[in-house]
Amino acid sequence: MPEPDSRGGLLGFEDFHVGQRFVSGKHVMDAEAIKAFARAFDPQPFHLNETAAKATFFGALVASGWHTAAVTMRLQVEQGLPIAGGIIGIGGELSWPKPTRPGDTLQVVSEVKEVIPSRSRPDRGVVRMRSETRNQHDEVVQILDAKLLVPRREMASPNSGS
Amino acid sequence: MPEPDSRGGLLGFEDFHVGQRFVSGKHVMDAEAIKAFARAFDPQPFHLNETAAKATFFGALVASGWHTAAVTMRLQVEQGLPIAGGIIGIGGELSWPKPTRPGDTLQVVSEVKEVIPSRSRPDRGVVRMRSETRNQHDEVVQILDAKLLVPRREMASPNSGS
Repeated sequence: MPEPDSRGGLLGFEDFHVGQRFVSGKHVMDAEAIKAFARAFDPQPFHLNETAAKATFFGALVASGWHTAAVTMRLQVEQGLPIAGGIIGIGGELSWPKPTRPGDTLQVVSEVKEVIPSRSRPDRGVVRMRSETRNQHDEVVQILDAKLLVPRREMASPNSGS
Repeated sequence: MPEPDSRGGLLGFEDFHVGQRFVSGKHVMDAEAIKAFARAFDPQPFHLNETAAKATFFGALVASGWHTAAVTMRLQVEQGLPIAGGIIGIGGELSWPKPTRPGDTLQVVSEVKEVIPSRSRPDRGVVRMRSETRNQHDEVVQILDAKLLVPRREMASPNSGS
């Protein structure tokens, strides 16, 4: 469940603390979506076609890791991570311990690992967040240890931007 | 330019060496594709709509970092990285030093940083590859330091899979 700030609004940098957790909604990965993403961005046999996938390393159709990453983002934007100013990633460490398979239901569980005020810019900071994307068997299919750029709440109103 | 092995075929683990470089083809990011990706996977104002983007941190429409990552993969699958058995990423470090903007032409330049034989599985190894995705001004919009699972060539034929 998202933990909005005490006023029920979106979170600013000052609202984050180490250990804080967020849980997203769920998303079912169907075979057609896996193949459509692959045709657009990762056209390899193990992502495109069940039969061709049998003769590959995976032995069956699996989602592109980038598809898992994109769906993880979608889940966090929709519900998982209510940050004022949006979810702006600077980068991070990414791994895919297991593939995502057709029919898998994905959900993202995130935990704040570090809260780093900016020295040069008092209006913002960096929140380091570890997000595990899990399937319906509670297996982790992706770990993203991301650095997010987070403005302080008072700086995040639409009219305060440059 | 891809460097295929001496027989002109796809690369196996034994064909990789530190310092080896690969250059992909090019891809133009147009505004409509940026918005379509955002609607599907990263529906935030700075990725969806030029006008709404003006009031945000970025001040203008920019591509989702995951869109840049997905296009990077496409460029490498198409031409940038001819690995026997396909491009199979275990994970890596990802950063977006600059945003990708509408009209940007992206190209991926990759360099092998490490070649690590598997101790337990003599038929494969891990290749650590740093891939910079650059725009038409030679600015780096993404750095991906990826660990790729690479089978040895003799293990990579379609009939040798499990």
